[in-house]
Amino acid sequence: MNRLDSRDAGFSADLDRLLAWEGVSDAAVQRTVDEVITRVRSEGDAAVVDYSNRFDHLQAAGMAALTVPRERLQQAYEQLPGRERDALAAAAERVRRYHAHQRQESWQYTEADGTLLGQQVTPLDRVGIYVPGGKASYPSSVLMNAIPAKVAGVPEVIMCVPTPGGEVNELVLAAAWLADVDRVFTIGGAQAVAALAYGTESVPRVDKIVGPGNIYVATAKRQVFGQVGIDMIAGPSEILIYCDGLTDPDWIAMDLFSQAEHDEQAQSILIASDAAYLDAVQARVDALLPTLERADIAGVSIRERGALILVRDEDEAVELINRIAPEHLELSVAEPLALLPRVRHAGAIFLGRHTPEALGDYCAGPNHVLPTSGTARFSSPLGVYDFQKRSSLIGCSPAGASTLAGIASVLARGEGLTAHARSAELRLLPDDEPAPAAGGVEGGA
Amino acid sequence: MNRLDSRDAGFSADLDRLLAWEGVSDAAVQRTVDEVITRVRSEGDAAVVDYSNRFDHLQAAGMAALTVPRERLQQAYEQLPGRERDALAAAAERVRRYHAHQRQESWQYTEADGTLLGQQVTPLDRVGIYVPGGKASYPSSVLMNAIPAKVAGVPEVIMCVPTPGGEVNELVLAAAWLADVDRVFTIGGAQAVAALAYGTESVPRVDKIVGPGNIYVATAKRQVFGQVGIDMIAGPSEILIYCDGLTDPDWIAMDLFSQAEHDEQAQSILIASDAAYLDAVQARVDALLPTLERADIAGVSIRERGALILVRDEDEAVELINRIAPEHLELSVAEPLALLPRVRHAGAIFLGRHTPEALGDYCAGPNHVLPTSGTARFSSPLGVYDFQKRSSLIGCSPAGASTLAGIASVLARGEGLTAHARSAELRLLPDDEPAPAAGGVEGGA
Repeated sequence: MNRLDSRDAGFSADLDRLLAWEGVSDAAVQRTVDEVITRVRSEGDAAVVDYSNRFDHLQAAGMAALTVPRERLQQAYEQLPGRERDALAAAAERVRRYHAHQRQESWQYTEADGTLLGQQVTPLDRVGIYVPGGKASYPSSVLMNAIPAKVAGVPEVIMCVPTPGGEVNELVLAAAWLADVDRVFTIGGAQAVAALAYGTESVPRVDKIVGPGNIYVATAKRQVFGQVGIDMIAGPSEILIYCDGLTDPDWIAMDLFSQAEHDEQAQSILIASDAAYLDAVQARVDALLPTLERADIAGVSIRERGALILVRDEDEAVELINRIAPEHLELSVAEPLALLPRVRHAGAIFLGRHTPEALGDYCAGPNHVLPTSGTARFSSPLGVYDFQKRSSLIGCSPAGASTLAGIASVLARGEGLTAHARSAELRLLPDDEPAPAAGGVEGGA
Repeated sequence: MNRLDSRDAGFSADLDRLLAWEGVSDAAVQRTVDEVITRVRSEGDAAVVDYSNRFDHLQAAGMAALTVPRERLQQAYEQLPGRERDALAAAAERVRRYHAHQRQESWQYTEADGTLLGQQVTPLDRVGIYVPGGKASYPSSVLMNAIPAKVAGVPEVIMCVPTPGGEVNELVLAAAWLADVDRVFTIGGAQAVAALAYGTESVPRVDKIVGPGNIYVATAKRQVFGQVGIDMIAGPSEILIYCDGLTDPDWIAMDLFSQAEHDEQAQSILIASDAAYLDAVQARVDALLPTLERADIAGVSIRERGALILVRDEDEAVELINRIAPEHLELSVAEPLALLPRVRHAGAIFLGRHTPEALGDYCAGPNHVLPTSGTARFSSPLGVYDFQKRSSLIGCSPAGASTLAGIASVLARGEGLTAHARSAELRLLPDDEPAPAAGGVEGGA
């Protein structure tokens, strides 16, 4: 693994190089995505079927062949081995329970003069969930994307999952059943994103698209942003562990690997103030790496993007954490809660030696869709709040309107917007008449 | 104004045509923006100064000439005429009070086995606010963008406002003072967005950029999305009024104009079930239009994008409201609160005849930065929540970890992620040992 020392002169620049990652869609990808979106918008189903046959090597005659009936989802769930079914159901239940805490409620208050102010919170009407096909087709992602939408009260959740070469993932279908997904299409790529964003004869137009995907999917999502809502564009997954040097090095090594095995671009970093402890972890990384089933992928990730960073003390560790703003942060220390108030930026914080990231990935309850590549500086885990939106409420009583009209009139004229001013002034009560008793918003003209 | 009738055969298609709007940045704009961002990233201040001189017709020798000291803001505020100063201060105070209701708080709960779950809510570190220059430079927008950030607890708010031809707007500087903006640069366009997103020698890198701008600004914001957070890409402003036919037609005409005077692309629509009332409003629109100071702009907007829509009844009106998902919705009826639960999509809802949009634009309290062009289907008014983010909290007790590890292990192996499984399994307690009493997250290994 890379070895950095905060005392080194070039440390800051070395760290920047280590963290550098930019998801670039080149011009060729952009052109393909533009073409796919344009054709799906104009030709609908026919284009979706055509692209699916071409890119996923299928022979579908029409959208019916790319539609999974609900009974098929139930069947997938019921035919799972009992252990897997129970584990999936337990995870779904925990995710549901945690996310119920995130529901936002409408609120309002009434001022002394009868004017009502507040926000009405409502769920989105319809949401699309993208699930990658093939090797990266994860049932846990189905739960993590669909359950918050359902907890928010979204009436209709549409899932798209490609089946390259016709390969269907039974666990993914079972998870869709557990998560109450309403409709499933076996389509993927930019064509799935375009179909969800604009609608076709078979695929209903959604209001928001969430879920990870390859560069074509990410580029298409960025392209349709504005037409529909999207979640963050995800980069490779990362973990940052800060350890006080007292956790079993095997535990830390395996926690680093749990990130590194995702893909070669994944990043695993350990920070400690004890150089001997970093040596000990490096030794266990070297010893355990060959025992991993995905040793090839994890090896590249660990060697090229992994790092052991020596810091002077805890203060410096906290500073680094906030600078990196990691997707996953493990505080593998004796008193993690004491550190917590000083952590400003992280997608998810795993507190204490007994909380490896893997528990959060599957079943602790919180979402595993988290801001990557330092975007925890400004964004949050996927949550129920991503599937709700707010409408401001303003209901002026005649007296309240008159008071506000006086202010608005001055400001609107200051901005040269005199129709605004006149619209406000029409609600002024005559100066010489005392304002009537507050009538509330029900009191009409 | 356009006249539509829901009974007509072609109504739905006509409505789609009326609402159609797509903010397209052509290839030339895209190229210019790419070049500006690339140069600002590599050359920093020098590029920003160069572009500012070129695009804003200035002769700045360096960034110092494009930096406004705090004392200058205070001076602008103190030298305002008393009436304007009082109105601005009253508006700021109301906006601040309303937004204080939006602050999200951290939360957590502890399960029976000692496992802690929750979310920690923190403000962003630094935010950039873009304020257009020249004619569209609105002090109210400064308040609406900066105050929620400050209420969220953002320590540093940076404002960029171009001064084309050197023209400084004193009201904008005064509003920046009132809203506690920390630093102001008189730069604009894609160069300002690039400077905020990547930082230069003088302009600190921010975590999120909010505020409206022209097509270059919007294109640049879309481009830097991911590097920093951005707010929605705003389209032209719209108002939809539903009236029961009992509001003074002059009031409705002026409310429609308050939207139409913004720009020629702005959209003003009135829905009613009484054709004679629509005639009456049309007559007042015709009579009042010539009296507007911005009659040229409002006239084009009203003629080309404005519409009077006749519906059968209230149910149909509600259906239309939800289909259009307007930025501003006025319910100019006797009992607006009775309708409210049926309104699913709107940026802001103005309740009753005494609540014209103009009051919300300036001083009612709620934000005037709202989702346009139907994006209220999936997004919300700008708010304090846009300047806060969440970190998930997971702290497993040894017993809790062991329970979760059993579930995670099964699911991880189902996904072929065996390092995840092994990382979880390391936290299993020996089967034959009873789980120790819940130790909470402070209990280390």
